[in-house]
Amino acid sequence: MIGIFDSGIGGLTVARALIKCLPEYDILYFGDTARTPYGTKSPETVIQYAIEDAKILIEKGAQILVVGCNTASSVATEKLRESFDMPIFEVISPAVHEVVSNNRGKRVGIIGTRATVNSNVYQDKIKAARPDIKVFTAPCPLLVPLVEEGWLNRGETRKIVKRYLYPLKLKQIDTLILGCTHYPLLKEIIQAKIGKRVKIIDSSETLSGTVKNFLAGNTHIANRLSKKGTHRIFVSDITNHIQKLASTILKDANKLEHIKL
Amino acid sequence: MIGIFDSGIGGLTVARALIKCLPEYDILYFGDTARTPYGTKSPETVIQYAIEDAKILIEKGAQILVVGCNTASSVATEKLRESFDMPIFEVISPAVHEVVSNNRGKRVGIIGTRATVNSNVYQDKIKAARPDIKVFTAPCPLLVPLVEEGWLNRGETRKIVKRYLYPLKLKQIDTLILGCTHYPLLKEIIQAKIGKRVKIIDSSETLSGTVKNFLAGNTHIANRLSKKGTHRIFVSDITNHIQKLASTILKDANKLEHIKL
Repeated sequence: MIGIFDSGIGGLTVARALIKCLPEYDILYFGDTARTPYGTKSPETVIQYAIEDAKILIEKGAQILVVGCNTASSVATEKLRESFDMPIFEVISPAVHEVVSNNRGKRVGIIGTRATVNSNVYQDKIKAARPDIKVFTAPCPLLVPLVEEGWLNRGETRKIVKRYLYPLKLKQIDTLILGCTHYPLLKEIIQAKIGKRVKIIDSSETLSGTVKNFLAGNTHIANRLSKKGTHRIFVSDITNHIQKLASTILKDANKLEHIKL
Repeated sequence: MIGIFDSGIGGLTVARALIKCLPEYDILYFGDTARTPYGTKSPETVIQYAIEDAKILIEKGAQILVVGCNTASSVATEKLRESFDMPIFEVISPAVHEVVSNNRGKRVGIIGTRATVNSNVYQDKIKAARPDIKVFTAPCPLLVPLVEEGWLNRGETRKIVKRYLYPLKLKQIDTLILGCTHYPLLKEIIQAKIGKRVKIIDSSETLSGTVKNFLAGNTHIANRLSKKGTHRIFVSDITNHIQKLASTILKDANKLEHIKL
């Protein structure tokens, strides 16, 4: 089975993209709603949580692991790879690959949580591959709670998005990476505020392409994965609000299963 | 020593009020920044966390316990009293006492996290004492992240406060309970938006009066508590941002100490 984890239910946007791309594969999702969010917490704490999350999925039968959370991808990928001997995918590299492999992006903006932006992972990876690209970042910490409130198209949300994107607009970026799994839910507002000519890269979409290519090229692994098209969604805490929002993002999430930490 | 805990650093407003009221007493504070916030989580999860938080403070030497968090006070007080044989204070009852013991409030508004409002604790306690009082509630989930971002006087914050308070304004409330320890930091905006004639009850201030009265009336307990005027602030996670915001709320919090959960 393919296991995906996230700090909460935002990573369901990644699960959604993966299901669309690989509909026949069995997928396990774990959202750490009891300790969400991760983006405001320290790297040490996020690493500890990420390792615990991965263990939960592996115990449930995951054979490959997808880190469906930009914060955890930014700070915990290396430790996860040291701890678990299995294919591990994260959301950063595919988005970076998309940026560096075409000649369009010369001025790239990255938005994410404070932890993701402070980790410098996106910036370092882009600079290593393409020193000619100018990278600008903006932490957008309030977008996660706004999405979790379901305020997807409110005036307040538009105003806050505009304020966050303003410094990137001044830098005249041509490409913007959505470096947080919650942000695809605000994609239209983000596109409107940053301008139509800016290409938006949704890290959940680039990631699912990468997983698909990997499985196509590694049939010995792909053959071992079960393919009944089942999707189970586990969370560490359930409230009515969490259940409702989860179903809004992904229809398969209409029956969350509780795992006590 | 007097132990106070909160889901994060918002409860430092309670510590601040307590220190002002009882400057000679030694105070231990624990903020669960590794799992903050509590207000979006289920009662079961909040109860589990509250019991763990109390154990940490008791191990460090706390002899009386203050639940400096409205969410934990709302859902976990009973379980805490079953689990620990010591004086335990919470933030709800003092604010309710203030409302029911004067003749002014006939139409009372309560704002808090979703967990606090859904618990119905404020409503039930007020109704039990004074069935003539009409109670209206409004969950304000985004105010906690706004305060934690330090957006204390931004246009966006004012707009969101106005939107949240609008239904209470329509109900023509005469009294408003700030049912979350973060909200005193937005008191001026809240007063401006709800109207000057509405009396605002700050649950951190009413609580510290209650603790002071208790100690004055129970000298055998007061005598056992150490009084060197020391204040130690523990948190389960530290980032630069958390450290900076903590110092803004309480000067004594300029050196947070880390406790790993």
